[in-house]
Amino acid sequence: MPTFRLTLEYDGRGFEGWQVQPGGRRTVQGVVEAAAAQVTGGAGLRLTGAGRTDAGVHAEGQVAGLRVETSLSAERLGRALNGVLPDDVAVRVCEAAPEGFHARYDARGKHYRYAVWNGSTRSPLRASRFHWVAAALDTAAMAEAAAPLVGCHDFASFQAAGSDVDSSERELYRLDVSGEPRGEIRLEVEGEGFLRHMVRILAGTLLEVGLGRTRVADVAGILAARDRTRAGRTAPAHGLTLVRVRY
Amino acid sequence: MPTFRLTLEYDGRGFEGWQVQPGGRRTVQGVVEAAAAQVTGGAGLRLTGAGRTDAGVHAEGQVAGLRVETSLSAERLGRALNGVLPDDVAVRVCEAAPEGFHARYDARGKHYRYAVWNGSTRSPLRASRFHWVAAALDTAAMAEAAAPLVGCHDFASFQAAGSDVDSSERELYRLDVSGEPRGEIRLEVEGEGFLRHMVRILAGTLLEVGLGRTRVADVAGILAARDRTRAGRTAPAHGLTLVRVRY
Repeated sequence: MPTFRLTLEYDGRGFEGWQVQPGGRRTVQGVVEAAAAQVTGGAGLRLTGAGRTDAGVHAEGQVAGLRVETSLSAERLGRALNGVLPDDVAVRVCEAAPEGFHARYDARGKHYRYAVWNGSTRSPLRASRFHWVAAALDTAAMAEAAAPLVGCHDFASFQAAGSDVDSSERELYRLDVSGEPRGEIRLEVEGEGFLRHMVRILAGTLLEVGLGRTRVADVAGILAARDRTRAGRTAPAHGLTLVRVRY
Repeated sequence: MPTFRLTLEYDGRGFEGWQVQPGGRRTVQGVVEAAAAQVTGGAGLRLTGAGRTDAGVHAEGQVAGLRVETSLSAERLGRALNGVLPDDVAVRVCEAAPEGFHARYDARGKHYRYAVWNGSTRSPLRASRFHWVAAALDTAAMAEAAAPLVGCHDFASFQAAGSDVDSSERELYRLDVSGEPRGEIRLEVEGEGFLRHMVRILAGTLLEVGLGRTRVADVAGILAARDRTRAGRTAPAHGLTLVRVRY
């Protein structure tokens, strides 16, 4: 049975996250599976995402493996899916997957972006994709605080409380702060893999630094403490976008 | 009675344009007037926009004069308005207007942006602010075709059919095409004033050039013809944003 590699873009507002859930809530996986079933008949259908984005999180380049019985070429399948998918999700690329491809296990890295609008008044045109912080942020301090977080560390302080994973050690390749106070500020976050809510807790913690509520020098201690209560709040989902998955 | 100068940002999707209409449709003017009445009591209230944006057109910097009896300072009034305005419209700046200020008659120029997404597949994250054109656009040809339109001309070919204005002569200060085929393309349009649908018809005509359906050399003739039927289609409203009004 053929497997296709889908690169998906979606506006997270209308979805209760990626993963199909009991109770019939609208999820990206559910909507894409329904479209694939409609287009192909659905024999043997299985859709596996590279990662499970939370409710409200956007994606420019989520990747999913679609296994399904079909005679359609990858290009035609992609076009057929876009013909039936709703406006808030689209297939950017549909290609034949390499033999044995697994969207989740084969992923070598992910790139997330956390976007902040730092204007003194809220911005209706940015409301869906930027988290609004009204007080001016010290972006230089945020960048300084970000530096020691890059590398291989135990990120237990930066994972959702109650998470149950074997190891909270992860490698962060990049944590860059760009933009100016009073404008659009972006955190570019790349890593091998991420714990639950990790990017949003990193963002929330750096925002505390930017607001002067946490000192730059304290961030290394927060990391070393391996204690969720020491880090900042989980920044809201709508500021987060999964930009790319690397294989 | 004091007059305030409001700089407004709005997401045009939820509005039937700027101007209050019979029948109670939701308009930006109506929503801002209601907010101002709620905050001040509404004695002598009058709100005048610099221009009437069409249904679906966005604004980063629409300007309106608000005359109303109030003891609030400009800064407090702005904050009070933002407290009661819905999410899709906000006051970016509220300041005391100069004596005799008239938002429409005093405007010396406007800057509009028309945004096009030229990817081969639709983009859910750009759907609300970019007009999608799937075929690759020749942006160099578009820029070449735009050049002779800059300056003072009779733009009768580029106004909505049935318009009834004294003169269709206008001065266009700038009509720049930026971006690359297969990416985001923007038309930056600045002028002293604009005819009804003028920016959208200019955009529609340049898109025809970009698609190879109209030749660069034909654009001067379209302008000279003063005939709406010679120009391209009116590009959709959701790609258009009023960026700034100059005084």
